[in-house]
Amino acid sequence: MSQALTALKERLSDLHQLHMAAALLDWDQQTYMPSGGVGARAEQRATLSKLSHDMLTSGDTARLLEKAEAANGGLPHGSDDWALLRVARRDFDKATRIPTELVVEFSRVTALAQEEWAKARAADDYAAFAPWLERIVDLTRRTAEALGYQDRLYDALLDQYEPGMTSAQIDRIFAELKQEIVPLARAIFERVDQVDASVLTRDYDEEKQKQFAERVLAECGFDFKRGRQDRSVHPFCTHFSRTDVRITTRYDRNFLSMALFGSLHEMGHGLYEQGTAESLEGTILASGASLGVHESQSRLWENLVGRSRAFWQRYYPDLQRTFPDALGDTSPEAFYRAMNRVAPSLIRVEADEVTYNLHIILRYELEQELLEGRLSVADAPEAWNAKMQDLLGILPPNYAEGVLQDVHWSIGIMGYFPTYSLGNILSVQLWEKAVSEVPSIPADVTEGRFAPLLGWLRQNVHQHGRKYYPGELIPQVTGSPLTAGPYIAYLKSKFGEIYGL
Amino acid sequence: MSQALTALKERLSDLHQLHMAAALLDWDQQTYMPSGGVGARAEQRATLSKLSHDMLTSGDTARLLEKAEAANGGLPHGSDDWALLRVARRDFDKATRIPTELVVEFSRVTALAQEEWAKARAADDYAAFAPWLERIVDLTRRTAEALGYQDRLYDALLDQYEPGMTSAQIDRIFAELKQEIVPLARAIFERVDQVDASVLTRDYDEEKQKQFAERVLAECGFDFKRGRQDRSVHPFCTHFSRTDVRITTRYDRNFLSMALFGSLHEMGHGLYEQGTAESLEGTILASGASLGVHESQSRLWENLVGRSRAFWQRYYPDLQRTFPDALGDTSPEAFYRAMNRVAPSLIRVEADEVTYNLHIILRYELEQELLEGRLSVADAPEAWNAKMQDLLGILPPNYAEGVLQDVHWSIGIMGYFPTYSLGNILSVQLWEKAVSEVPSIPADVTEGRFAPLLGWLRQNVHQHGRKYYPGELIPQVTGSPLTAGPYIAYLKSKFGEIYGL
Repeated sequence: MSQALTALKERLSDLHQLHMAAALLDWDQQTYMPSGGVGARAEQRATLSKLSHDMLTSGDTARLLEKAEAANGGLPHGSDDWALLRVARRDFDKATRIPTELVVEFSRVTALAQEEWAKARAADDYAAFAPWLERIVDLTRRTAEALGYQDRLYDALLDQYEPGMTSAQIDRIFAELKQEIVPLARAIFERVDQVDASVLTRDYDEEKQKQFAERVLAECGFDFKRGRQDRSVHPFCTHFSRTDVRITTRYDRNFLSMALFGSLHEMGHGLYEQGTAESLEGTILASGASLGVHESQSRLWENLVGRSRAFWQRYYPDLQRTFPDALGDTSPEAFYRAMNRVAPSLIRVEADEVTYNLHIILRYELEQELLEGRLSVADAPEAWNAKMQDLLGILPPNYAEGVLQDVHWSIGIMGYFPTYSLGNILSVQLWEKAVSEVPSIPADVTEGRFAPLLGWLRQNVHQHGRKYYPGELIPQVTGSPLTAGPYIAYLKSKFGEIYGL
Repeated sequence: MSQALTALKERLSDLHQLHMAAALLDWDQQTYMPSGGVGARAEQRATLSKLSHDMLTSGDTARLLEKAEAANGGLPHGSDDWALLRVARRDFDKATRIPTELVVEFSRVTALAQEEWAKARAADDYAAFAPWLERIVDLTRRTAEALGYQDRLYDALLDQYEPGMTSAQIDRIFAELKQEIVPLARAIFERVDQVDASVLTRDYDEEKQKQFAERVLAECGFDFKRGRQDRSVHPFCTHFSRTDVRITTRYDRNFLSMALFGSLHEMGHGLYEQGTAESLEGTILASGASLGVHESQSRLWENLVGRSRAFWQRYYPDLQRTFPDALGDTSPEAFYRAMNRVAPSLIRVEADEVTYNLHIILRYELEQELLEGRLSVADAPEAWNAKMQDLLGILPPNYAEGVLQDVHWSIGIMGYFPTYSLGNILSVQLWEKAVSEVPSIPADVTEGRFAPLLGWLRQNVHQHGRKYYPGELIPQVTGSPLTAGPYIAYLKSKFGEIYGL
């Protein structure tokens, strides 16, 4: 290894560890930090992000990177070092393209806007948030212009979360989803009474929910020696190394699905991080390939595994024993149908598998219209409601359950929503490929044996961390580019059967 | 404020926040981190300490400091800015005097030595640890030489923890302690049967211990909105701001004192941090004056308040109601005597008020002999045992309960132990001054009213943070320098009464 590369690696490792320390500041804030700590924590986070931005964009880093590139032109394609140089160049270029003043203003405005959004949502007062959204749309536009793009402004934003993805590709995928899912959803909405989900809202002791979920997570393969699960208001997954992966969940005594499927979802993210190759530990490659690929892992475990008949063949008797009062009179099949109930709903994070993507399409379309100036901030609620009516056939009774429901815009995240749907689509492609290569997987799941599935995911997806872009990884693993067909077929088959379509 | 000072403050604030982030890495490691996280956490800590060392000792900081000093020579003595410049200069000079190679070697050796110490202690194998202690003594000597000192090498080390304190002063204080406490302890040892402490080792439900302690802590004035208490193997207090102070404790179902007095002890540290003036928040002055002053706060709450008759006049009925099985047959007076039992013991951290300082004197004498080359590492266990016999009249049956018992040397902390005794001494000076100025305090304590005491401590000690050196603060508050007389008188009076001397 060249001296130049060694020196660059040392710097990138410092940068990585600084990011890990920042991630702990965030984890702590969302789990254990006393309320009084908010102000100081903001200072600590600001200091660390200033230091890491300075370190990444410094002349020193530029020189180290140039030298390492010059000395290592012949690295074998696909080697760790080759990927490291490529990703370092990508991160460096992105970070240096945005003027520091813009970075500072963006972070200052969004820090305030998040609070204003929370207040506006609580008071159901869109007008109070509109000026902030106005500023954020403007700052986001300027950021996208600084980052640069080939065809459309949105691509600059999307590429931050899903390297190489373009809005032209998303348009095609979403058109297909819309064409197939809207009629499927409509057909189900007409038969909404065929599934009774009231069993999920009975009384479930929180401590027992926790113990049951942790037992299941451990059996799935989540390593509690290299991770833990805590409570937080908004569930998330973070990591400080492949040997220290933290997931969080929330409990509702009267809604079993929240913690149960929430835990399986975050566990999917967590398994990805625990599965990164040891050789990537401590480098900037030690994380997932993209948000979409990450979401494919959470969705695969939550839906393909967790909401399957196979899974509950193994776990329903356990669950029934854990909650005899709530579940004593419920058959496995009734429970399976309940957890897979489809209904039009206002809130994205509570949506079922069928309608979830419609929520995403709504946001994707709105974001583009806002950023391209085809829609004014003032008109956004009306546009939201029209799309809601069009896609789901329902109207939000207020802003809080409509345009104000998601935190994303207030924290300056635009171009992010599509990755949720990409994750859904990819989860099915991966699942089908895994089953075609290891046909025992569905039967294994019925007996609580998850090692074959997890082993396949580790081998094909997890170990690579951030080495490959999604556009490389997906064909390499599945033999085809990202494609919505299998996902649509999965939805039609699963829910067609449940609703007798 | 001069531009130069503003620029310096900005840099020092970054430095402070970096230290706070490092403190969170440590807190998390000791409370919630899964065991697998150890290796990566060491990397994260190394990165942050390298960055903060670089930031503190950089040419930039030197220039900012010089400019700020030149422009602010006339700052009023005692103002925040005056103190900030003085402490910044002190920190900068200390950090730059030690060659980077020495810092790196020291941290590398102690990182390994701590693990070797733990193994050696578990295996009761002093020979396995001896080579490490050899290296640490050598590295410590070189560090002390680099730091510089007037009279004795030990002073350079001591000054790091207790600014301005010298071994000549410690010698005088410890001679006085030894002269008075050794005979007191001997007299008590002859009457050891007069106090029965078995009530403390009955069965105490851990959750109830926790709830009781938290109720007491809240009433004492620990603000749980600006802090929290968690479990850890070794209790400690840390803070990330005056609004986020974390204390930890450990529970023993069969030993009530551990969590009860441990919590009061750490709370004393925590109240100090919560009491720092808001104007010092986010600066390098936002911490205690020294380890000795810090310990005075923990000891004051643990012993002067927590082990007093006055305190239990208020809380014993509560405690008895909480643990009716364990305490139903025990009178308040029997409970008071039990918690104040004095006996020769091998382990410092379990020692009573009377013998505690003898443990400290032992370590102080040994450290000096080791550092000055009058004692070889090979002979240390024998010297330890001889002193133990001399001071406490007992002999450790093994190394684990003798020379290997404390973590300090293995992590490279020498010159630190005396601050424990300074804290004990100061706790009584402060208590007596507080009572002389607010005579209601003892009566207030009998009724669970702690605001007068806490208010006095905040006003006189806490708010100043690290503004004043202990040699300035102590006379300013108590009207006299640090002096052992009141402490010795307190011990004689309290324990003379209990043991009928």
